[in-house]
Amino acid sequence: MNPDIVKERHNATFDVDRLTNIIDGGADRTKRRREIQSLVLNDPDFDYGNPNFLSRSDRYDQAVRKSAQMILKLREYGIADPKEIAWYKSMHWGTDREALGLHFVMFLPTLYSQCDPEQFKKWVPLAESFSVLGTYAQTEMGHGQFCVHRFSASPLDIHLAMFLPTLLNQSTPEQMDRYFTAAWELDIIGTYAQTEMGHGTHLRGLETTATFDPAMQEFVLHSPTISSIKWWPGGLGKTANHAIVLAQLHTQGKSHGLHAFIVPLRSMGTHKPLPGIVIGDIGPKFGFDAIDNGYLKLEHVRIPRDNMLMKYAQVKEDGSYVKPLSSKLTYGTMVFIRSMIVGNAALAISQACTIAIRYSAVRHQSEIRAGEPEPQILDYQTQQHKLFPLLATAYAFLFAGQYMIDTYNRISGDINQGDLTEMPELHALSAGLKAFTSWTANAGIEVCRMSCGGHGYSRCSALPDLYVEFTPNCTFEGENTVMMLQTARYLMKSYRQVQAGKQLTGAVSYLNRGQHGALQPQAVSSSSQVDLLHINTLVELYKCRAANLVELAARSIQQEYERGKSQEDSWNGSTIDLVRASDAHCHYMVLKMFRDKVDQVEDPGAHSVLSTLARLYAIHGIGNNAGDFLQAGVLSGEQVLAVSGHLKGLLAEVRPNAVLLVDAFDHHDKMLNSVLGRYDGNVYEHMFEWARGSPLNRTEVHESFHKHLKPLQSKL
Amino acid sequence: MNPDIVKERHNATFDVDRLTNIIDGGADRTKRRREIQSLVLNDPDFDYGNPNFLSRSDRYDQAVRKSAQMILKLREYGIADPKEIAWYKSMHWGTDREALGLHFVMFLPTLYSQCDPEQFKKWVPLAESFSVLGTYAQTEMGHGQFCVHRFSASPLDIHLAMFLPTLLNQSTPEQMDRYFTAAWELDIIGTYAQTEMGHGTHLRGLETTATFDPAMQEFVLHSPTISSIKWWPGGLGKTANHAIVLAQLHTQGKSHGLHAFIVPLRSMGTHKPLPGIVIGDIGPKFGFDAIDNGYLKLEHVRIPRDNMLMKYAQVKEDGSYVKPLSSKLTYGTMVFIRSMIVGNAALAISQACTIAIRYSAVRHQSEIRAGEPEPQILDYQTQQHKLFPLLATAYAFLFAGQYMIDTYNRISGDINQGDLTEMPELHALSAGLKAFTSWTANAGIEVCRMSCGGHGYSRCSALPDLYVEFTPNCTFEGENTVMMLQTARYLMKSYRQVQAGKQLTGAVSYLNRGQHGALQPQAVSSSSQVDLLHINTLVELYKCRAANLVELAARSIQQEYERGKSQEDSWNGSTIDLVRASDAHCHYMVLKMFRDKVDQVEDPGAHSVLSTLARLYAIHGIGNNAGDFLQAGVLSGEQVLAVSGHLKGLLAEVRPNAVLLVDAFDHHDKMLNSVLGRYDGNVYEHMFEWARGSPLNRTEVHESFHKHLKPLQSKL
Repeated sequence: MNPDIVKERHNATFDVDRLTNIIDGGADRTKRRREIQSLVLNDPDFDYGNPNFLSRSDRYDQAVRKSAQMILKLREYGIADPKEIAWYKSMHWGTDREALGLHFVMFLPTLYSQCDPEQFKKWVPLAESFSVLGTYAQTEMGHGQFCVHRFSASPLDIHLAMFLPTLLNQSTPEQMDRYFTAAWELDIIGTYAQTEMGHGTHLRGLETTATFDPAMQEFVLHSPTISSIKWWPGGLGKTANHAIVLAQLHTQGKSHGLHAFIVPLRSMGTHKPLPGIVIGDIGPKFGFDAIDNGYLKLEHVRIPRDNMLMKYAQVKEDGSYVKPLSSKLTYGTMVFIRSMIVGNAALAISQACTIAIRYSAVRHQSEIRAGEPEPQILDYQTQQHKLFPLLATAYAFLFAGQYMIDTYNRISGDINQGDLTEMPELHALSAGLKAFTSWTANAGIEVCRMSCGGHGYSRCSALPDLYVEFTPNCTFEGENTVMMLQTARYLMKSYRQVQAGKQLTGAVSYLNRGQHGALQPQAVSSSSQVDLLHINTLVELYKCRAANLVELAARSIQQEYERGKSQEDSWNGSTIDLVRASDAHCHYMVLKMFRDKVDQVEDPGAHSVLSTLARLYAIHGIGNNAGDFLQAGVLSGEQVLAVSGHLKGLLAEVRPNAVLLVDAFDHHDKMLNSVLGRYDGNVYEHMFEWARGSPLNRTEVHESFHKHLKPLQSKL
Repeated sequence: MNPDIVKERHNATFDVDRLTNIIDGGADRTKRRREIQSLVLNDPDFDYGNPNFLSRSDRYDQAVRKSAQMILKLREYGIADPKEIAWYKSMHWGTDREALGLHFVMFLPTLYSQCDPEQFKKWVPLAESFSVLGTYAQTEMGHGQFCVHRFSASPLDIHLAMFLPTLLNQSTPEQMDRYFTAAWELDIIGTYAQTEMGHGTHLRGLETTATFDPAMQEFVLHSPTISSIKWWPGGLGKTANHAIVLAQLHTQGKSHGLHAFIVPLRSMGTHKPLPGIVIGDIGPKFGFDAIDNGYLKLEHVRIPRDNMLMKYAQVKEDGSYVKPLSSKLTYGTMVFIRSMIVGNAALAISQACTIAIRYSAVRHQSEIRAGEPEPQILDYQTQQHKLFPLLATAYAFLFAGQYMIDTYNRISGDINQGDLTEMPELHALSAGLKAFTSWTANAGIEVCRMSCGGHGYSRCSALPDLYVEFTPNCTFEGENTVMMLQTARYLMKSYRQVQAGKQLTGAVSYLNRGQHGALQPQAVSSSSQVDLLHINTLVELYKCRAANLVELAARSIQQEYERGKSQEDSWNGSTIDLVRASDAHCHYMVLKMFRDKVDQVEDPGAHSVLSTLARLYAIHGIGNNAGDFLQAGVLSGEQVLAVSGHLKGLLAEVRPNAVLLVDAFDHHDKMLNSVLGRYDGNVYEHMFEWARGSPLNRTEVHESFHKHLKPLQSKL
């Protein structure tokens, strides 16, 4: 154990294990999580090589092997609880982290544990348990710009998370008999092909056609243009032998919009592409080397009529089209998935902080006081200013993610009982929070990486991989700017309701008017007596800021409209303000959730340290957005000045607990997979060991010496 | 040609070629640049494969081949002018862009064109022409946290840019005879080994020892600890056979600090490591796959006494140490290199903007007005808000970089004539600008990438590579935070001079006091009559902001000191404020340089469009830092509100010229190497073509199917 890091661990003002329990939701859960994770740690079958040293082809191969093994192991151990599957998986994949916990948190446990393969014939109850996911696959068509199926940890993820649920949700009983068992037994390996090269968000824009030929009782699937080539689906490139293809249905000379079709892609025996199927890998990406994201060009591919998923809409034998009975969208799954991304953001930023803070405790550099030994770089104020607000952010997002899931679970219960009142608010919040947290985490990982100096650039730090694997969260499941504008739409609607005299409840009640028709929340008080370090004051300040920015955005739309623009152009001409308003709303909500969580913590040590972090989170945000607080008169110039003093005080307050606060996240070394972030702090010896394994070191003399350098030397 | 992009090019309000000429510094220079670049374009020897599809080993091999070929070609063509070499090289390497233009801009041209190998015996005049670089290698030892030699475009860069100049500058005439010709003829391939695994910035911290043994007339080079292993030098891993090693000199029982030694690493014939040399590649990094950054562990390696570079300090045969006559540091080279990084930042952000803006002109998505065709995404205000301020920033940094180099050249002349008055100011500015511009560009590239939606994640966009190749600019040549604090030190010194009654001149003259002892620049005027769109007003606003933040930082130090802290701790306790002050100073200077440049532009069309960009740059910065302007009373809340209105107006003003403004950068498709950023806008067909070349598509069925999936299927 590195002596610096030992010393840090003597500084605790709180019990690390208790804080870990708070994060996990109880001591029993911490215990069980560690048990599950140790299953992987102690399993010799899971001793894979360092993926950083593999070619893409070998990395893909390793991922397929890992997928296959994990499926067998989960069955063997009978791990059933969604959360437990997630723990198992996170350990199994290490930094090859899944982009979306959903697949394993929702789908696999039900699939592998709660259902017997024999039960599939009676698929109706099963379909119900999958309905959320199935619905997701449906609603996603109209919303995600960069879909769930684009990034996944393993080549089989899409099969499990998209293909099977879609089958379950949209198949007729006959189709279930035909496909589901085969898919379950992995004879059919499916993927989900929606996004096209030229089309993401917009249903209308998708070009792939499925034209019914009544003479042959077949659909003809076709990609009419280059831009209509299906692009990105995970597992499509090399792994899948079937796809659910989304295509514009044409029958009897009419177009009926997007429908789903099961299309065989590769021969079941040989795995070779079938006639008319032009298929392959889309090439290297920013990370995700192990995944075979693919393209699919359909050249007049014929499939039987009953390969259309016909549970809802149908095409009869004569080609007549039967509309689905209802096309209601369920927002529940989107809320769930976006809340999961909030959790992803928390996880990623907590891992990045763990690496950077531990490394900053063992790295010594330069000098603060002349002649003294090089200090730990964690003692530089600028280093603290980079890392501690992010540490606070990690906790904030962790609790926000938990709040969202808890609320979702509570409301989902309500939905079944018909009480949907809270859903629109939660849906709107989930969109904005998805963007707010993923953007922050995205930038934060890079701050952590760069805070490690040169070694942050080495893949042994794990920070480069952490970044490339996290960054798609900003784009998939709803591109972040689009998400912010969804939240803004709700805020504008709420604002208009207040204008129309309605009294709002819930999170947006801060938009209600006071007696004089003004916005309710005024400046907290510009008097110097206000305690800027009190968390309730800080929450109030953020509320005022949000209210003011919502009003500014609403006014902007109004002004554009009064200048003669259409409503739509007025909206587009105010989107800068609308994004700002959403951002402020989300910031307020995250801080409020943090405060509420801290209020519930009974352990005095944990309460105290979390309270410091909550205030740091708030104070740092004021510093970064001082203009908003000043412009609205929420704070005076003097108060903003005081805020920067408080910021420094809070950084100093966090300093002695910093290493312990990242220890409390309890990220196992094997999961972090970072030489810089090792628990024992023994960075340098392990960096050397890591480097020696580099593939370029396999030969003493690289072939290029003989090929290129030696001839050059003799030539001169 | 894509019709959308054709349409964009009909919208010009200015002559694109004239703007390109302004960027290049004249029509003749544009012409010559294109001639040089066409040498590469039309050279069949330079038709390399797509590096994105290669393994690291193959990518390294390709880079060695490219290096060797380029050296031969430069000689063949007799290209001599530094700028021309840079043009040639940028074309040759495409997106495999060099991290530092310096190597080829300064070193190669002199080496390959102005000197005949026969002249090397008379090396003194040659050494003078290299003295800047040689000095750099020396001063760098004490300053760079993450050195020039860490990232380079080719495995031979360090040989050319560090090894040879150090030889030239620090060798005795005898050493020159012995090493230089061999190094010139590439029998000796050198690298420069300074940084150690545990030590970057601090000279004192380096641990490698060179102990003189008078009995054998040898130095014993040794790495006493793991943390003393030399780490990062480019070309060290596999390419070099010699290194200039920086080590603590011990002789006659005394330590004399860091000195440079020539250490043979590998056998000249076989290229195998010599006894006691533990050497290899440090493993994969965030990008830079082609470079063999290496480690070097010295195990009691003996070298002859005269392998110490003894031009300055010497160790005599009896072991007595002769001090160098002078140890003056020359800041000139650091200024030059940091100014080059400002140029790198401009280049990178201009390339990212070119890709993102062209793609945004051809990509259609969603809807602004219901029922209408999907609009170009460039018509969304949020997309404009992401990209156009970055476009303005690219121009701002381009002109700032040119200003710095021009000023450097002018002052360098002065130095030779003894007029050093402007150098400290320029040195201080170059440190801050290096950080200011590289941080902005770093974040900006990612904004551009994410503005391209899903396709920004594909390596075919070139944006992932652009990012990983640019990001080290934030760390090498002085870690950015350290750089900001260097500038801050100058600002504090200037502030104290004013306090002491001195009247400052030059850039910091805004710190001078007015009649009443207050800071000279007051609020421009809070009256609404002030024209916030006038560039001179905007420059004045930034000046006020800088003055206020410098004062705040100075006050913070004072307050800490008055609380009883030492001066050093007061400084460390104010570094947050100091970084902010530097940032504001740099922002002001960049805007001022932009304004000054625009003032010189005579062409009315170019003047008008650049003027719009300069105002956009300023207005956008006010929006992002509104707190600074409000807190100091430089602007009122109402004025800040007006600023966001102006911002929208400026975005709309830029829109029709957007594609042309990136065209004017004149980045050739081959240099951008981006499918999304193609000049002809034909994105989708080329994306398909690119993907088909992916290595995973070489076989129809990947081996993993038979190895892992088929057995899994049969098992189930």
